[in-house]
Amino acid sequence: MSEKSNELAVVLVSGGMDSLVTAAMANEKHQRMAFLHLNYGQKTQDRELKCFNEIADHYNVPKSLRKIIDISFLSQIGGSSLTDDSIDVKDYKGDSEEIPDSYVPFRNTHIVAMAVSWSEVVGAKKIYIGAVYEDSSGYPDCRPSYYQALNNLIKEGTKDGDIEVVTPVIHMKKEEIVKKAISLQAPLSSSYSCYARGDKACGICDSCALRLRGFQIAGLEDPIEYDQRPNYL
Amino acid sequence: MSEKSNELAVVLVSGGMDSLVTAAMANEKHQRMAFLHLNYGQKTQDRELKCFNEIADHYNVPKSLRKIIDISFLSQIGGSSLTDDSIDVKDYKGDSEEIPDSYVPFRNTHIVAMAVSWSEVVGAKKIYIGAVYEDSSGYPDCRPSYYQALNNLIKEGTKDGDIEVVTPVIHMKKEEIVKKAISLQAPLSSSYSCYARGDKACGICDSCALRLRGFQIAGLEDPIEYDQRPNYL
Repeated sequence: MSEKSNELAVVLVSGGMDSLVTAAMANEKHQRMAFLHLNYGQKTQDRELKCFNEIADHYNVPKSLRKIIDISFLSQIGGSSLTDDSIDVKDYKGDSEEIPDSYVPFRNTHIVAMAVSWSEVVGAKKIYIGAVYEDSSGYPDCRPSYYQALNNLIKEGTKDGDIEVVTPVIHMKKEEIVKKAISLQAPLSSSYSCYARGDKACGICDSCALRLRGFQIAGLEDPIEYDQRPNYL
Repeated sequence: MSEKSNELAVVLVSGGMDSLVTAAMANEKHQRMAFLHLNYGQKTQDRELKCFNEIADHYNVPKSLRKIIDISFLSQIGGSSLTDDSIDVKDYKGDSEEIPDSYVPFRNTHIVAMAVSWSEVVGAKKIYIGAVYEDSSGYPDCRPSYYQALNNLIKEGTKDGDIEVVTPVIHMKKEEIVKKAISLQAPLSSSYSCYARGDKACGICDSCALRLRGFQIAGLEDPIEYDQRPNYL
């Protein structure tokens, strides 16, 4: 393995599989990581927080470099089924160019802005985020060009202009993320991707469907519990 | 006067003079405005909220189009005297290239991201913000190039990519802002700019000094109360 950098990296860890693998990849390159987790009034936030802490324990992230920030102001804005209880989470409809209801307008900008502010405080120069383009269901703020624009904005809008957002899984298909998790021995059982429920993954929301399909294509078994496991192949 | 657009505009109204004049200029162009105000644990937030509502009343912004969002998570990140009580607000030191202590890392990105998310919900295509470059004391996120980068990011990161941030006072000197306020009959007595105190403006913090100096150069009297009014000419 190549030598790890002594430079601190901030990793955005939602508790989902994409962020888990992103953390595992950041861990390959950095000796020191700081984990940032954002609650925004999503239905599954307790479960995600539990995963966040298990993943942080796994990678020996000290308590002083774990930050949980409540950004539930996003739910005050509304317009999304992830944060607005009056809108149901829709079931998986297969490939679609349409932007789904679970879209929080401009959400990733809030999330990354938080990471940038915190990076300035803790002195990190790299921010890892598990954005995925392939299976992004059309979220505009998962596109590579969005992250290019974001890095340009950070150059213009920060004190030293030397913080960079890194998106190591952005071009990976879900099955590649599954395989990467296995090869890096990432603790998959400590990740959770369901949008709909916090007790046991539903197996049918967009996010469960993409995850299960990834495991099915990879020919592997997802170690977490599901209410149902439809065949998505 | 040219005909006003029927398009809704979101205006970021902190309650300070720059945002007041920005609202007055938006009012010249738009029949309908929505006002957004962000509290972030700053020492002067009650006073600023009072100003926000007075300005909204003045411009007949309906209650349903006034939004106040608590973004006090910024104070959890620290690193700034605007939000951290353990750091004193420094007195005015005159022109300086240095970024002052009152800098919240990447603050305007949080603020504009909020406005973008809300604009998608209420259907606004223009966001007015009273950023000022001339007297910005070196804040990187007040530079015109920052707003260009931000508009590029919005194009990439939103559903339709057609929301634009407008900065009508960015190239104005403080004395020009004062004169503009007078010429548009903006309610100056309902604006408040002090960083240090919420009861009566201190007259000596950076923000008070810039405001008072603007009035002094313009040869006009600031209608708000100050604890002291040094001569800044």
